Amino acid sequence: MKKINIDSPKKTIRDVEIGDRVTIFDFVNLYECRIGSDTRVGTFVEIQKGVEIGSHCKISSHTFICEGVKIGSGVFIGHNVSFINDRFPRATNSDGLPKNRDDWDLIPTTVADNASIGTGSTIMCGVVIGEGAMVGAGSVVTRDVPAHTTVAGCPAKVITDTEGN
Amino acid sequence: MKKINIDSPKKTIRDVEIGDRVTIFDFVNLYECRIGSDTRVGTFVEIQKGVEIGSHCKISSHTFICEGVKIGSGVFIGHNVSFINDRFPRATNSDGLPKNRDDWDLIPTTVADNASIGTGSTIMCGVVIGEGAMVGAGSVVTRDVPAHTTVAGCPAKVITDTEGN
Amino acid sequence: MKKINIDSPKKTIRDVEIGDRVTIFDFVNLYECRIGSDTRVGTFVEIQKGVEIGSHCKISSHTFICEGVKIGSGVFIGHNVSFINDRFPRATNSDGLPKNRDDWDLIPTTVADNASIGTGSTIMCGVVIGEGAMVGAGSVVTRDVPAHTTVAGCPAKVITDTEGN
Repeated sequence: MKKINIDSPKKTIRDVEIGDRVTIFDFVNLYECRIGSDTRVGTFVEIQKGVEIGSHCKISSHTFICEGVKIGSGVFIGHNVSFINDRFPRATNSDGLPKNRDDWDLIPTTVADNASIGTGSTIMCGVVIGEGAMVGAGSVVTRDVPAHTTVAGCPAKVITDTEGN
Repeated sequence: MKKINIDSPKKTIRDVEIGDRVTIFDFVNLYECRIGSDTRVGTFVEIQKGVEIGSHCKISSHTFICEGVKIGSGVFIGHNVSFINDRFPRATNSDGLPKNRDDWDLIPTTVADNASIGTGSTIMCGVVIGEGAMVGAGSVVTRDVPAHTTVAGCPAKVITDTEGN
Repeated sequence: MKKINIDSPKKTIRDVEIGDRVTIFDFVNLYECRIGSDTRVGTFVEIQKGVEIGSHCKISSHTFICEGVKIGSGVFIGHNVSFINDRFPRATNSDGLPKNRDDWDLIPTTVADNASIGTGSTIMCGVVIGEGAMVGAGSVVTRDVPAHTTVAGCPAKVITDTEGN
């Protein structure tokens, strides 16, 4: 791993640790995260601090990965996928002042190795998406996804295992 | 309020009125709108003309706020939230020429003070999201949301009031 | 048609054929595609290689159009719309190495003339959206949409024809 900092017209990258042969496309905002070898990061992607992404992943355009998310290796994240880390988000505290990071509980989310998350999906905080699982496009995932199963819908439900049964 | 114009590599900001201590992140397209004091605007956000946003709000990354939307103070708008202002959008008029702003009816949308709109939600035009209401992540809101209630789903339905009842 | 290449701070445009009076906004990533006359392309849009878009279309902000998509003339694509071209996406092959374009089957999608796709919709691969059809905001389209009908929901179902019956 090496740490990179790029502040160019098309890239805002601050304190990001990357492995070998990582590809990062234009118009990205990445900070204080780790991205494994051979992983590709598409355009219009934001990855927040503390995020860990394994090797050989594909993070597609327009996707948002927040603090608290850990992604294994060989994972496909489609376009326009959003993660969440706060179950009851509010802009302000009860005193009316803006919430800072200390004012709410971060709830982690895990995506295990070789899972695929379809384009346009929203992943609620606190879930584990199991190894090799597949989330159908446009899903809203609100609970854990067992390994090697496919889920789809809003809220997402198991529709099959990945062997087609 | 002061009016700002910034045309830098990472920001397109034209005729935007802002209050004090407004934070605007990279890769934004904001024009002819008003943003109140202490409000934060994330990356990859577009805010169109005529939009009014109160103070102490958080507008998260990848969100689109169109003409006709009025947002109160202390409002949380999640990531990847889209508003709408045209009920039956078409690219062209019956003569086949591109529609201009005079060729369709703008339908306004209001988000009242201290409401929260979850990540990945789509807000149909013409709705009022009441004070302190919460819209669950990944929702499609097609009708008014009463104050201090939580809605979720596609289409979004009331699941509880915000006291947990 | 003329071919354009622009690599400026706010635009990444490579080998794109455009007609007359095409408008392209800031923060876009367009490559090896064709865009017809009088079509408008919004901010934060990515259009991939091989995509063909007709004349007099409106492609709104935050939208992703992938390889394999063909869009007619007079088409409205809302904000934050995502297309798909791979039914079972995976990041890697069974040998664990990253998939390249030769390692999966591209499944095409067609949007016929004068159709409208609402904001926040996800369009599964392999569908045909018929002439003049309308897809409601926030829909997940998983099957063909007949001409001159309106569909909505997740998954999208016919709710009316466009005459209001």
